Amino acid sequence: MKSYIVNKNVVRYEFGKPIETYSVIEKGVSESDIEFKYFQLNLGEEIKLKYNMGKKDIVYGLGENIRGINKRGWIYESFCTDDPNHAPDKKSLYGAHNFFIVDGEKKFGVYIDFPSKIIYDVGYEKKDKLEITIEGKDADIYIINGETVKEIVQNFLKIIGKGYVPPKWAFGYIQSRWSYPTEEAVESLVNEFIERDIPCDGICLDLDYMDNYKDFSLSDERFPNFEEVTRRLKSKGVKIIPIIDAGVKIEDEYDIYEEGIENDYFVIDKDRKPFVAAVWPGKVHFPDFLNKDARKWFGKKYKCLIDKGIEGFWNDMNEPAIFYSENGINDAYRNIDELRTKELNIDSFFKFKDVVLGLSNSMNDYKGFYHKTENGIVNHYDIHNLYGFNMTKAAAEGFEEIDSNKRFLLFSRASFIGAHRYGGIWTGDNCSWWEHLILNMKMLPSINMCGFIYSGADTCGFGSNVDPELAIRWNQLSIFAPLYRNHSSMGTRNQEPFAFDEYTEKTIKNIIKFRYAMIPYLYSEYMKAINSSDMLIKPLSFEYNDEFVSQIEDQLLVGDSIMIAPVYEPNKSGRYVYLPEDMLLWKVKKYTSKDFDVINKGHNYINLDLNEFAVFIRKNRMFVYGEPAQNTELLNNETLNVLAFVADRAEYDLYDDDGISKEYLLGEHSNLNITITLEEDKHTIVVKNSGNNKVKELLVTIITAEGKIITEKVNV
Amino acid sequence: MKSYIVNKNVVRYEFGKPIETYSVIEKGVSESDIEFKYFQLNLGEEIKLKYNMGKKDIVYGLGENIRGINKRGWIYESFCTDDPNHAPDKKSLYGAHNFFIVDGEKKFGVYIDFPSKIIYDVGYEKKDKLEITIEGKDADIYIINGETVKEIVQNFLKIIGKGYVPPKWAFGYIQSRWSYPTEEAVESLVNEFIERDIPCDGICLDLDYMDNYKDFSLSDERFPNFEEVTRRLKSKGVKIIPIIDAGVKIEDEYDIYEEGIENDYFVIDKDRKPFVAAVWPGKVHFPDFLNKDARKWFGKKYKCLIDKGIEGFWNDMNEPAIFYSENGINDAYRNIDELRTKELNIDSFFKFKDVVLGLSNSMNDYKGFYHKTENGIVNHYDIHNLYGFNMTKAAAEGFEEIDSNKRFLLFSRASFIGAHRYGGIWTGDNCSWWEHLILNMKMLPSINMCGFIYSGADTCGFGSNVDPELAIRWNQLSIFAPLYRNHSSMGTRNQEPFAFDEYTEKTIKNIIKFRYAMIPYLYSEYMKAINSSDMLIKPLSFEYNDEFVSQIEDQLLVGDSIMIAPVYEPNKSGRYVYLPEDMLLWKVKKYTSKDFDVINKGHNYINLDLNEFAVFIRKNRMFVYGEPAQNTELLNNETLNVLAFVADRAEYDLYDDDGISKEYLLGEHSNLNITITLEEDKHTIVVKNSGNNKVKELLVTIITAEGKIITEKVNV
Repeated sequence: MKSYIVNKNVVRYEFGKPIETYSVIEKGVSESDIEFKYFQLNLGEEIKLKYNMGKKDIVYGLGENIRGINKRGWIYESFCTDDPNHAPDKKSLYGAHNFFIVDGEKKFGVYIDFPSKIIYDVGYEKKDKLEITIEGKDADIYIINGETVKEIVQNFLKIIGKGYVPPKWAFGYIQSRWSYPTEEAVESLVNEFIERDIPCDGICLDLDYMDNYKDFSLSDERFPNFEEVTRRLKSKGVKIIPIIDAGVKIEDEYDIYEEGIENDYFVIDKDRKPFVAAVWPGKVHFPDFLNKDARKWFGKKYKCLIDKGIEGFWNDMNEPAIFYSENGINDAYRNIDELRTKELNIDSFFKFKDVVLGLSNSMNDYKGFYHKTENGIVNHYDIHNLYGFNMTKAAAEGFEEIDSNKRFLLFSRASFIGAHRYGGIWTGDNCSWWEHLILNMKMLPSINMCGFIYSGADTCGFGSNVDPELAIRWNQLSIFAPLYRNHSSMGTRNQEPFAFDEYTEKTIKNIIKFRYAMIPYLYSEYMKAINSSDMLIKPLSFEYNDEFVSQIEDQLLVGDSIMIAPVYEPNKSGRYVYLPEDMLLWKVKKYTSKDFDVINKGHNYINLDLNEFAVFIRKNRMFVYGEPAQNTELLNNETLNVLAFVADRAEYDLYDDDGISKEYLLGEHSNLNITITLEEDKHTIVVKNSGNNKVKELLVTIITAEGKIITEKVNV
Repeated sequence: MKSYIVNKNVVRYEFGKPIETYSVIEKGVSESDIEFKYFQLNLGEEIKLKYNMGKKDIVYGLGENIRGINKRGWIYESFCTDDPNHAPDKKSLYGAHNFFIVDGEKKFGVYIDFPSKIIYDVGYEKKDKLEITIEGKDADIYIINGETVKEIVQNFLKIIGKGYVPPKWAFGYIQSRWSYPTEEAVESLVNEFIERDIPCDGICLDLDYMDNYKDFSLSDERFPNFEEVTRRLKSKGVKIIPIIDAGVKIEDEYDIYEEGIENDYFVIDKDRKPFVAAVWPGKVHFPDFLNKDARKWFGKKYKCLIDKGIEGFWNDMNEPAIFYSENGINDAYRNIDELRTKELNIDSFFKFKDVVLGLSNSMNDYKGFYHKTENGIVNHYDIHNLYGFNMTKAAAEGFEEIDSNKRFLLFSRASFIGAHRYGGIWTGDNCSWWEHLILNMKMLPSINMCGFIYSGADTCGFGSNVDPELAIRWNQLSIFAPLYRNHSSMGTRNQEPFAFDEYTEKTIKNIIKFRYAMIPYLYSEYMKAINSSDMLIKPLSFEYNDEFVSQIEDQLLVGDSIMIAPVYEPNKSGRYVYLPEDMLLWKVKKYTSKDFDVINKGHNYINLDLNEFAVFIRKNRMFVYGEPAQNTELLNNETLNVLAFVADRAEYDLYDDDGISKEYLLGEHSNLNITITLEEDKHTIVVKNSGNNKVKELLVTIITAEGKIITEKVNV
C-alpha cells in the first residue's frame, strides 16, 4: 500500500496496481506515509475493510441503490445490474457508486475506486459491523475528511470533477413510453400536450424508432420522415430524444456492424472472436467502449441523428444487459435435453427453471469476454462497472467533436462515478409501486452525493400499472428532480397526464405548470451546485444539526431555499412533517396558490389533499419563480415572483445563463442578487443585477416570522 | 334474481343457480321481493356490479390480500394463488375472501358467495368507480346492513358461523423452518429454547419429516423415532406440528395413493383419469376434497400421526399449487423444440422464458381437471377457491371423528370464508421485507373481518434474508397476533431468536416473554370475539368516530383494551402515533417495565428504541397480564397484574376455560369481572369471580387521567 496526499482533506491509498478508471481527476502525486485509519484491513486476493459502527452511526451514500438514505441494515453489491424487478431484497441496481460516509462518533468519507464487484455489509450480518469486500487486490481507496458531512461530500465532489450540465430545455417535462410506435403517434402526442395546455419539452423514442433495433438506424416503416418530424416538433418547442442501446446487431451490410468487425471494435471472447450476446435485436456484439478507438468511432455515430435535428439521447442497456449469450443458450438446451429424459422431480424441476431464468445477465457471460484497453486485454468482469460509464463518455466525446460549444442532453442507465462529468442518469427500470415512489425519494440525495446531479426516476413507474392517485403523487415529487421524465413499459397502462380521468389530468397539469414556474430557481440552484461542487438535493441532516433530523428520510432539501415533504402513501390526505426550524409552508394547488402558513419548529401533521403538495421555504430564504409556458423556450420571466420567509435578513443569488452553450465554463452568466432585510416594521429590498437582461421586475412577497404578509413590486 | 331475508340486517340475492359453498350457515328461506340496492347491475355470462364511490368513501375488506386496510386504488382478484413473490402489483394471495364494506355517504357490507374468480376494481381504472366482475352467472350476493361498520362486520360474522378455537397452547410461540432436517435437529432446537430461557410451545415440521414428501408417511432416515421424540418433547411442553400437503405422490405400494386410486378419490381429467400434476414429491394426484367420501377418507388419515402424539397440523399447497402438469410440461418441451430451431430473437426469447415461467399454477391446468361432487362433475376452475377450504374441512371433520371433544391446532394456507369455522390461516409465503411487515399489519384486521381470527404471518418473513433489526420489529408486531409463528424458507438466513447477535436474542426473548405474560388477556379477548361474533384485531376507525382515524392503517386495536403502534421502518427510534382520545402509553422493554405515560389525544411522536414497543391502554380500560413461563402449560397465573387507565370507571371481563376441550361450546368457562371506579380521590375495585379457580390475587395498578399511580393488591 502506498499513500498519496491529494489535498488537505483527501488521502489516496493505493493497493496493488489499480486499473485507471478515470473517475477521479485529482489523484495526488507525491507519495507520503500516512496511516490507513478507521478500518481493520485484510489484504489477500480480496481487500477486506472492517469497521465497528457506533449504535447511532449513520452510513450515507452508495448512490443508486435500494433501501434508505441511511444504508444500515442490509448488504449491497456494487455491480451494475439490469433488474427491473428490484424488490427490497435486491442488492444492486444499474449504477455502481462506491462513495459513502460514516457519520457518528467518527466522521469520514470513503471512495473506493475499483471497477469490479464490491460487497458492502452495513450491519446486516452483525448489527454494528461494517464489512466491505473488494473482489480484487488492486484498488485505490480515498479517505475524505471534513468538519461536517456536507463538507466531506463537497471535498469528494471536488476530486471527481465538475458535473454534467444539460441544456436548459432538459429541465422541462419529458414524456416517454416504450414505445410511441410511429412518427404519427409522436406527432399527435405532442399536439395533444399543446392542445391540452400541458407543458412539454421532449419526447423520448424507445426501441421502435429503429430499424430492427439497430443503433443509428431508422425504421422506414414507422419513422419514414424522421428528420422532418423532428424539425417540425422542434419548431413547436419539443425535442425528440432517441434511445441508443449498447449492443450492435450482427447483420451483414449493416454499416455499424461491418465497421466494427473490420476495425476490431467489439469485445472479444476467449478465442479472440467477437463475443456473441443477444439483446433486443437478437444476436449482437458489444462495442469495446474501453478501447479508445472504438469509443471514438461509436461517439461519432451520434452525428447521423444530430444531423437530423436531434439534440439529446439516452443510452440504455449498457450494464451491459445480456438476455442470453450464444454459449449460454447452447448450454441451456443441453441441460434441458438431459433433464427431460427423466421425470422432473422437485430438484430437477427447479433446476429446469433455473436453466432458463439464469440465462440473462449471468456471471459466466460477464467473465466470458474481454476488452482491448491501453493496458492490454482485460476480462470484462474485472472492469464491469466501467462499461456504461465509457458508453456515456463515447457519446459525450462524440458531441464535443461534433459541436464543442453546444450542450446536448444525455442520460444513461448504467453508470460509475466519473460518468457524472459526461451525462446524467435515470434510475433504471422501476415499477409503478408506491414503494418505488418512496425509494425514488430516498435515492435522490444518495445519487447527488455521488456527483450525479442531473438525475431522476421514471415518474409513475416503468413496469406494472399505475393508479391515478400514484400518478399524481409521483408527479408531485418528480417536479423537484432535474430529470423529470414520465416513462412506462410496453404492456402497462398508459400514464401520460391525460391517460386517466379529468380530475387527474387537471391535477397533473397544475403540477407540471408549477415545475415550469420554478425553472428559474431549479436551474439557478442546479448551476450553483455544479459550480461549487455541491449537491442539489440533500437530506435534512446535511444542513441541520439536531438529533431528530438524522432519522428523516421522507423530506428533502432542494437547493438552498426549500424543503419538500411529498405524500407517498395511498389514500392519505396529509402527512407528518418534522421542521428543524420554523418554516413557511406554501400549500400548492397551482403555482398561483396563495395558501401560506408559518409552521413551527417540531413535529407537525400537515393536511395535503390529493391535488395539493407542500413547498416549505426555509427561514431567511427565498424562492424565485416565474410564469409557466408551453415549453422552456417560451418561458418569459421578465417578471419573477419572489416568495421570501424572513425573520431578519434573506439573500439570494439567481444564476442564469444562455442555457444552450458551454460558455458558462468561461464564466458567462448573469446574477441577480436579492437581499431582503427586516428591521422592526421596516423592510428593505436591494437588488443587484449583474448581467441579467431578461428580468424586468420582481413581485416580492415577504412573509415575516409572525406571518405578516408584505408585498412589493421592484423594478430591476 | 330472487331475494331472501336472512335476518333483519341481511338480505340474500340469488342469481342463477349458485353452487353451495357452505360458507354461510344462515341463508334465509322465505323468498321475498326486496330491491337490489346500491349497485348498477349487469347480468350476462358474468355478473357485473358498479358503484360510484364518494370522494371520501372507504372500502374495507377482501381479507387476505395486498395493499392497505382501505382497498381503494387497486384491482384485486379473488383467486387462491401461490405466489411467494407478492410484490405490490400482485392481485391475489392465498385466500379468497369476498366480504367488503363501503363506508361513506352510504354504509353497507357485501358478501359475494361465489367459488371462482371475482375481480374487484376499487377505483383503479377510474378513481371513483367500484366495479366488480363475477366470472359466472350463478352467485349469492348478501347485502349486510348495520348502523356502524363494526355492526356490519358483526352482522356478517353471525351469518357465517362462529370461528375456530384452537387449544390454548396454540397462543404460545411456534418456531418453524423449511426444514429442521432431522429429529436430532428438532430436539436440540427445543433444548436450545429451554436452555436459553426462551418460551416456546410448538415446532413446525416442514416437508422433510416425510418419506419423499408423501403425506402421512415418515422418513425412516430423518425421523426414525418420530413418536418417541414427539412424546418426549411434549413432556417438555413443546408440540410437534407436521405439515400436510394437498398432493398425493403417485407411487405403487404407497397406501394413500393406492386407496385413492382404488376408491376413485382423486380429481380427474377430461378423460376421467386421475389428473396428474407435479408438486414436491414429483407427480401427484389431488384428493377430491369436494367429494364427501374422499374428504372423509383423507380426514381419517390424520389419525396415524395423532396416534403418535401429534395435536396440531398445518395444511399447505392447497390452492392447490401446481409446479407443472403432465400436459403442461409436454407442451413446454414441444414449444422449446420448435423455438430452438431458429435463432431466438426478442419475441421468441421472451416466449421461451414464458414457456417455462408459465408452467406453474397455470389457468389451463386449473381448467383441466374435475371434481365429483354431490351435484355432479364440476370443473375445478369453477370451484377453485373451495379447494383449500375443503382440505381444512377434511382435517377438521377427521379430528372430530378421532376425538370429538379435543381441540386440535390446524391452520391452512389457502382459504375461503367458511373455512374459518374449521381452522386458522397463516398469510402464506411472504418475504423478509420491511414492506411485508407493514403489509402484515394491514392484513390482520382485513382477515379478522372475514372471520379468520386465528391467523398470523410468517414472522420475520419466509423468503429472502432478514436483518436483525427487522427480526426484532417483526416480533414486536407478531406477539399481538393469535398465531405467532416464526417461519423461513430453505436457503435463507436462519431466524430463530438466537440466530443473530446477543443484543437481538435478548431483545426478542423479552418480546416473546411479554407475549406469554399477555396470554390471559389475549386468550380472553380471543374467546370473547369468537363467542360474540366480533373481530379481535380492528382498525381504529371501527371503534372511534373521528375523521382522522379513518386514514390510520399503522395502528391497530387488539381486543377491547389496547392499541398497538409498531415501528415498521428501518433505522428508526420512534414513530408518529395519533390518539383519538387520551391513552396510557406503556413503553415496554420487558413485561416488568414500569415506563408509563399519559399521552394526550391528537398527533404525537413517540420515541421507541429498537428494544422498546408501545402498548397503549385505552381510556377506562384495563389490561390483564401474568408472569411468563417456558410454555403455556407452565403458566401459573395465580397472581395477575391489572394495568388500568381510569378516568372514572373501567370494567373488564377476564374469560378463561380449560383451553383443551370443546366444553366452552356448552358454556363451560370462568369469568373474572373486575370493576374499577374512581371518584374524586377514592378508588374502588370490585372483583366478581364466576368459576375461576386459578387466580388468587390481582396486583392492580391504576393510572388516572392525570397520571397519578395507585397500586393495590386484591385477593380474589
